[in-house]
Amino acid sequence: MNNDIRQLLENVKSGVISIDDAVLELKKAPFEELGYAKVDMHRRVRQGASEVIYGAGKTPEQILGIAARMIDAGQKNILITRMSADAASLVGSKLDLSYDEKSRIGIIGSIPPPTGIGRIIVATGGTSDIPVAEEAALTAEFLGNEVVRLYDVGVSGLHRLLSHMDEIMSASVIIAIAGMEGALASVIGGLADCPVIAVPTSVGYGASYEGISALLSMLNSCASGVTVVNIDNGFGAGYSASMINHMEVHE
Amino acid sequence: MNNDIRQLLENVKSGVISIDDAVLELKKAPFEELGYAKVDMHRRVRQGASEVIYGAGKTPEQILGIAARMIDAGQKNILITRMSADAASLVGSKLDLSYDEKSRIGIIGSIPPPTGIGRIIVATGGTSDIPVAEEAALTAEFLGNEVVRLYDVGVSGLHRLLSHMDEIMSASVIIAIAGMEGALASVIGGLADCPVIAVPTSVGYGASYEGISALLSMLNSCASGVTVVNIDNGFGAGYSASMINHMEVHE
Amino acid sequence: MNNDIRQLLENVKSGVISIDDAVLELKKAPFEELGYAKVDMHRRVRQGASEVIYGAGKTPEQILGIAARMIDAGQKNILITRMSADAASLVGSKLDLSYDEKSRIGIIGSIPPPTGIGRIIVATGGTSDIPVAEEAALTAEFLGNEVVRLYDVGVSGLHRLLSHMDEIMSASVIIAIAGMEGALASVIGGLADCPVIAVPTSVGYGASYEGISALLSMLNSCASGVTVVNIDNGFGAGYSASMINHMEVHE
Amino acid sequence: MNNDIRQLLENVKSGVISIDDAVLELKKAPFEELGYAKVDMHRRVRQGASEVIYGAGKTPEQILGIAARMIDAGQKNILITRMSADAASLVGSKLDLSYDEKSRIGIIGSIPPPTGIGRIIVATGGTSDIPVAEEAALTAEFLGNEVVRLYDVGVSGLHRLLSHMDEIMSASVIIAIAGMEGALASVIGGLADCPVIAVPTSVGYGASYEGISALLSMLNSCASGVTVVNIDNGFGAGYSASMINHMEVHE
Amino acid sequence: MNNDIRQLLENVKSGVISIDDAVLELKKAPFEELGYAKVDMHRRVRQGASEVIYGAGKTPEQILGIAARMIDAGQKNILITRMSADAASLVGSKLDLSYDEKSRIGIIGSIPPPTGIGRIIVATGGTSDIPVAEEAALTAEFLGNEVVRLYDVGVSGLHRLLSHMDEIMSASVIIAIAGMEGALASVIGGLADCPVIAVPTSVGYGASYEGISALLSMLNSCASGVTVVNIDNGFGAGYSASMINHMEVHE
Amino acid sequence: MNNDIRQLLENVKSGVISIDDAVLELKKAPFEELGYAKVDMHRRVRQGASEVIYGAGKTPEQILGIAARMIDAGQKNILITRMSADAASLVGSKLDLSYDEKSRIGIIGSIPPPTGIGRIIVATGGTSDIPVAEEAALTAEFLGNEVVRLYDVGVSGLHRLLSHMDEIMSASVIIAIAGMEGALASVIGGLADCPVIAVPTSVGYGASYEGISALLSMLNSCASGVTVVNIDNGFGAGYSASMINHMEVHE
Amino acid sequence: MNNDIRQLLENVKSGVISIDDAVLELKKAPFEELGYAKVDMHRRVRQGASEVIYGAGKTPEQILGIAARMIDAGQKNILITRMSADAASLVGSKLDLSYDEKSRIGIIGSIPPPTGIGRIIVATGGTSDIPVAEEAALTAEFLGNEVVRLYDVGVSGLHRLLSHMDEIMSASVIIAIAGMEGALASVIGGLADCPVIAVPTSVGYGASYEGISALLSMLNSCASGVTVVNIDNGFGAGYSASMINHMEVHE
Amino acid sequence: MNNDIRQLLENVKSGVISIDDAVLELKKAPFEELGYAKVDMHRRVRQGASEVIYGAGKTPEQILGIAARMIDAGQKNILITRMSADAASLVGSKLDLSYDEKSRIGIIGSIPPPTGIGRIIVATGGTSDIPVAEEAALTAEFLGNEVVRLYDVGVSGLHRLLSHMDEIMSASVIIAIAGMEGALASVIGGLADCPVIAVPTSVGYGASYEGISALLSMLNSCASGVTVVNIDNGFGAGYSASMINHMEVHE
Repeated sequence: MNNDIRQLLENVKSGVISIDDAVLELKKAPFEELGYAKVDMHRRVRQGASEVIYGAGKTPEQILGIAARMIDAGQKNILITRMSADAASLVGSKLDLSYDEKSRIGIIGSIPPPTGIGRIIVATGGTSDIPVAEEAALTAEFLGNEVVRLYDVGVSGLHRLLSHMDEIMSASVIIAIAGMEGALASVIGGLADCPVIAVPTSVGYGASYEGISALLSMLNSCASGVTVVNIDNGFGAGYSASMINHMEVHE
Repeated sequence: MNNDIRQLLENVKSGVISIDDAVLELKKAPFEELGYAKVDMHRRVRQGASEVIYGAGKTPEQILGIAARMIDAGQKNILITRMSADAASLVGSKLDLSYDEKSRIGIIGSIPPPTGIGRIIVATGGTSDIPVAEEAALTAEFLGNEVVRLYDVGVSGLHRLLSHMDEIMSASVIIAIAGMEGALASVIGGLADCPVIAVPTSVGYGASYEGISALLSMLNSCASGVTVVNIDNGFGAGYSASMINHMEVHE
Repeated sequence: MNNDIRQLLENVKSGVISIDDAVLELKKAPFEELGYAKVDMHRRVRQGASEVIYGAGKTPEQILGIAARMIDAGQKNILITRMSADAASLVGSKLDLSYDEKSRIGIIGSIPPPTGIGRIIVATGGTSDIPVAEEAALTAEFLGNEVVRLYDVGVSGLHRLLSHMDEIMSASVIIAIAGMEGALASVIGGLADCPVIAVPTSVGYGASYEGISALLSMLNSCASGVTVVNIDNGFGAGYSASMINHMEVHE
Repeated sequence: MNNDIRQLLENVKSGVISIDDAVLELKKAPFEELGYAKVDMHRRVRQGASEVIYGAGKTPEQILGIAARMIDAGQKNILITRMSADAASLVGSKLDLSYDEKSRIGIIGSIPPPTGIGRIIVATGGTSDIPVAEEAALTAEFLGNEVVRLYDVGVSGLHRLLSHMDEIMSASVIIAIAGMEGALASVIGGLADCPVIAVPTSVGYGASYEGISALLSMLNSCASGVTVVNIDNGFGAGYSASMINHMEVHE
Repeated sequence: MNNDIRQLLENVKSGVISIDDAVLELKKAPFEELGYAKVDMHRRVRQGASEVIYGAGKTPEQILGIAARMIDAGQKNILITRMSADAASLVGSKLDLSYDEKSRIGIIGSIPPPTGIGRIIVATGGTSDIPVAEEAALTAEFLGNEVVRLYDVGVSGLHRLLSHMDEIMSASVIIAIAGMEGALASVIGGLADCPVIAVPTSVGYGASYEGISALLSMLNSCASGVTVVNIDNGFGAGYSASMINHMEVHE
Repeated sequence: MNNDIRQLLENVKSGVISIDDAVLELKKAPFEELGYAKVDMHRRVRQGASEVIYGAGKTPEQILGIAARMIDAGQKNILITRMSADAASLVGSKLDLSYDEKSRIGIIGSIPPPTGIGRIIVATGGTSDIPVAEEAALTAEFLGNEVVRLYDVGVSGLHRLLSHMDEIMSASVIIAIAGMEGALASVIGGLADCPVIAVPTSVGYGASYEGISALLSMLNSCASGVTVVNIDNGFGAGYSASMINHMEVHE
Repeated sequence: MNNDIRQLLENVKSGVISIDDAVLELKKAPFEELGYAKVDMHRRVRQGASEVIYGAGKTPEQILGIAARMIDAGQKNILITRMSADAASLVGSKLDLSYDEKSRIGIIGSIPPPTGIGRIIVATGGTSDIPVAEEAALTAEFLGNEVVRLYDVGVSGLHRLLSHMDEIMSASVIIAIAGMEGALASVIGGLADCPVIAVPTSVGYGASYEGISALLSMLNSCASGVTVVNIDNGFGAGYSASMINHMEVHE
Repeated sequence: MNNDIRQLLENVKSGVISIDDAVLELKKAPFEELGYAKVDMHRRVRQGASEVIYGAGKTPEQILGIAARMIDAGQKNILITRMSADAASLVGSKLDLSYDEKSRIGIIGSIPPPTGIGRIIVATGGTSDIPVAEEAALTAEFLGNEVVRLYDVGVSGLHRLLSHMDEIMSASVIIAIAGMEGALASVIGGLADCPVIAVPTSVGYGASYEGISALLSMLNSCASGVTVVNIDNGFGAGYSASMINHMEVHE
């Protein structure tokens, strides 16, 4: 959608393409129609770069169809989130897939070497937040980041967190993942000097209300530099963290 | 309501009082009817001990009426909560009242010397939680407790809290008061060895929803030993803390 | 976290330990890293004393791993809450576990003789609140308290509750457990002279909203001395009650 | 709307009225058009019987207009609920109005002698529930019922309520009015043998959420025979109680 | 709980019973302790009259135990609500039970002939509200009422309701049961001259939120004479309707 | 319910039907009583025209019974919504049914040729909204409309939507279906010149709260001409769109 | 936004405009920048046609600035919604404004003669819904529709509504406006043959929750053909109704 | 809090400071006690750098006190958020303050020249979001960023947003601010290649619920790279954006 309009107009002007082709171009690219989905070759996509399929609400057949179409189009590495075991089984029987059951992340192709500014820390309040944390960590790794995992460092045992002050002070971005009271983001936000992305999880019971308690806590964090993503949205946190960890001077 | 039934029965048996008087007794005591209120001389009340009037939703005239009736009945010290400036003005013109505008606490009579097991700490996350904190602190002092105030020690600046580890480790009971994300209770609960009473406050904006964010946070605290009272209920926290600080062996 | 900093500093000063060892010490203790969990040897933990594992959201293998590590470290008695039957089956096959299916409480080792100030009453509104009540009662017993169970004494049949006035008046702490309207806490709070810990339960249907009705009721209790824990949080109530029942003069 | 259809059809058949008049009849009666309101002469209304105007959201002028039209039509007694002081002032300057500021009830005409089966008890948990209670009590009196007021008998001081067991046991209908935890309805429902109508009030603060806590409590009451009306709906409770108190055998 | 205190006092006075026996009496009656439940022989219970067991949250064994104990005590007719098929199967193998799967109502003994003032109408908005409606209808019949069922008369097809005007106008009490928008109660409330008890149901999808939409609708009904019970609480509606239908002059 | 009253009155007057028959007529038509349902032959229903059965909450037997009764009465085409596979299996074994598993729509008879003003566009934000979309699309087709499906055109990839500007600009009505953030309705509403009916879906996770996020978004749409139906209510959207697409001049 | 792209491309191709001018064109039209607002000359806007300013959240000066700029651009008729009295006073002092205080609608210029297919009915449940109703009615009239007002026809007095069956049956579109229980939309939806747009209002008290009760009711309407707009959104309803009332065959 | 522990230990070891001084150090720095507040000299604060005071809930006197103490300590530039006009008036009378009434931002000292990687765009959906936008923009400018303001570019008029594609494509970070449906964040997130921080505003009415609709929308955004801050939290967004815009390689 970016600067292509000017380019297209110049091509029309210079006669490189006809008007009808130009209109067609605007309609066709940059996605392909599969009926049940429009396969997106989106934002700055160059052949061979990374691509993501959001697996939830798609049948195994649909996921396979989309992935196959992407590979045909030259895509090498594909991340599939919220992938059911069934979908992994089907896709794995046809394509070169590695699958992490805990986080329900599937990866076609390979994880690239890290290219970011620094390291991304993925921290969790408890053991049961690990599935969401792995979704975030694998996403960040898939997008070219070095990831450090700090699991089970919840604020009710502060010493566990404080013993990792070195890692926290040297991080580029921190992803703070917690259910229940969700205080981890505030405490880390107060300790760290870098952007903190908070992920509430649906872990808990009673008045945790499937993550709403943690979500509200994190939104109300008094620590500056904390932003929040949706409950259990490990992927979103990993993606945003990667984006921040790849900031570069615009000229 | 306690052991009086047996006593009453024995008095009936021994003829000390008639049946009709006994029935009357059950009906009359231990409160007095003012029409708009039943003046309660309740729980372990001995003449001269402390008594509380919940001021919200009562007119200045009603508060004065109740207080005057209590004093007539021999009450010396009365705590009035949620007292409007108007009520304070009216009551103060008739009775010996000291009034704290911030916490809207009025005290008739005097604050007794501390008699509890140890000290009660009243800690707040921020400056704007102070009115609720003062309601808790003054209530606890009125009920015979030594109180230490730690204000503005919110978790987004952890060093402020940690610098008071000595007080925290030696407290008998801690009242943790915070709005917004309410993480203070969890962090203190994880650090301290004593009961922690959490008070969410309606301080904040946006998704703090008048205290519900802090309330949920505190209810979901992963730290053991934390219990919660209603939003802004400084009085309830002070009262419960005092009760705990006056625990004694039942024989 | 308490007074160890001063001690450590003195040891550094006196050359008892090196700076690097001191830094290491701060980082390592008082927990042990299992990858998926940091095994906490926390608060006033002396070898052989009691320890707790929160079982929810942990796999049977993780629970076994944590428990085994604790026992290796000399722990004798371990309480495991929210333990699934599967976890109990696995842990029971390796360690000396007694398991209560109703409350999903597992206990490794034995329940100690009571050491508290007085007795803790665990009261429920109905029969279906019993699982939560047993979680509270077993927790309190595990932590060294005498427990009296008063089940099915809901306020819609007030005589059932009033017939236990003797127990209520002589209790050290009362845990009031109820779903639906949750009025039990207020009525007991009005009758008793001791701290009351209210536990809302998710028992009920329709507008009980999985315990929120009882939770709000209890938070809004007009009776002084009532504090609240999370919905279905029998453990938290038992733990806090035990803490209160073991209050002692700080010198 | 009731048996009139058959009557109308018979009149059409017998030629007593023409078809057009019959259609007109159906359209015109039983209300009158004022533009901003349709003045209802509804349900069993005989000339001179009682009528009600719901005052909220109507301007003083509109209330006066409606009342005047009713009186023109022969109405003698009119109850006006939720009437502002301004409206009372305007209406009172033109018509014979008595106005109760607390409950915002205005009455044109007089209160009739009681005609019901028995007595209606109006009980409140606290002093601040009195405005709603008076709305209920005055409504019931206006509709021909003897009313007994039991104010400030909340469950946190159970003895206050129990001292009125005689009245409770002999009531025909009980209206239980409470804010905050709303437990009054359950306790009374468990004690009484008659229908109980529960009225939550918006009295309270914090997690009482303008009456929702009391509302949920009352809906979840475990006591049989309790039904609920809207928050602060004293009128509705008084009206329903009167209806029940005037039940008679249908032949 | 009623006038027994005076009687007891007189017996104590006259020496008919000793003080200890009197205290015992207060504690024992009118329920029996089964450990997991206190079997209630409550309100106006005469030998052989009807009794109710609330089946939800009780195991089949507990229900059987309670029912058996009641029968031993002379009870002839017992209504069991929210009874699972499993419980019905167990109880039915030991006792003379008839069970209605749709409403999950079990009845031990027989349904008595109607004794009320008039007829109770049970009306539903749709076909899927029938299970709740049958709970209400069977409860009312069990308690001695004639019941008329009007099912599937929702307001979006008004003619279906209006065709039953005769029944509506001659009813003693109407129970209006509806999910989704819950408008049935308002429309019936506007048409009828008798008390209307509204029961919201959890039928529906999307923004019906398990009955909260219908509940709010019914609470906000502009029709006078409408009161509300909990979502899906057919039993409560049937019980209250029966109570109203058995109103009699108190002397 | 429309002009039949006048017609009926004229028939009574002219003696064409007796009074009793007229009353009967009012009661019987236009539905038939099946006990569990009143089979509606409603609004402008002429023999052979289309009819709808709402399948949710009805047993397979009830659906079959209603459909069979309609066909007996001459109905040719019937749409059954929210039909379970079981119900489809039973009905299909007796009647000529085609069933779409995805949308759970069953159709007895055939889909008529389009008769509307123009085309209805059914657009979805993602692949997982398709079941709701098909419910809308099949409903609209069943009611005589040409439908264009634009699936997976969510606003986070705006080019996918903009490439369909031609269809959007030429639509008669647009149904915009989306879960999660629900922004599709606003963006389409801003682009199009025709009525837009927004359908929130329960697709999503975390803070999408089963569709409430999308619902609120759509209700708050700043684009004029957008109205909303219930979450997942594809049928309602299809029905309303058809109604609008068949608008004609009333004379 | 529609077919202009093709036109623009052709103009570029034919040299009618330069590439830079084309890019400029895309950026500039069709709005004008005022700093605090972009004045929109949007959708099918021809010189002199009608335009709307949403007044809420804009200062009187901003409203005047926008209106003045529109008039300069040739606009003749402007509708201003949610206009404060202050804004009306300022704008009225400079421009030819008529202002309706009740609905806070301001109109610059004149209301055109009706051009729609038929009549739009605006119906309200009560007197206090009239401000929202007038916003809807004036909007519809401003957009060229004949409007019929049916005020105070709530469903608790069904005869008031049924007496207007003629108008209801002959309407082109009906706007049903109600607070409290919001049942009006369902009942009208069941009676009428045309699209019904439901507008919940924030009128009411207690559990009406500022319109959410009515909103949920309307969303859950069982009547087909009902769609909903935001609470109090009279303008949106009027706008959509007008759009539907101006449907015409697309060729 | 960072590497100071090691440094401190080394100083203790080397005798540079005594143990008591070390303990003191830990307690005193880096904040100063004012009684009602602990003045924080936190995170990488060097003398003369920027500092922030959160003004909400603080009295004018408290704000002045804190600011004065900071300036005494050498602070040159101070940002005060949520500052009331009263506070501005008091502080302005003593210190060199510039105050923006719209955003309630006060600045002591001066705004520094931009030092970030690129430009921060602050975009709003409407005119009434401007106060929050200015809080974000001024914060970002105060922290050394170049800011571009794009106001009133809501998605219901998509062309307004698309005309700024150049700015959007070249931004370093984008802050997307919107009330009502909050779709702006998703659309921008889909168009841009940089991190997007979404700020819901409490602008709106009806079902916007003071910003919750926009908040949920933004949390559920399907666009990758979008994170969210609290409702109306312009400051938090500006602070986080600045942090991201100042990312640099950690070595």
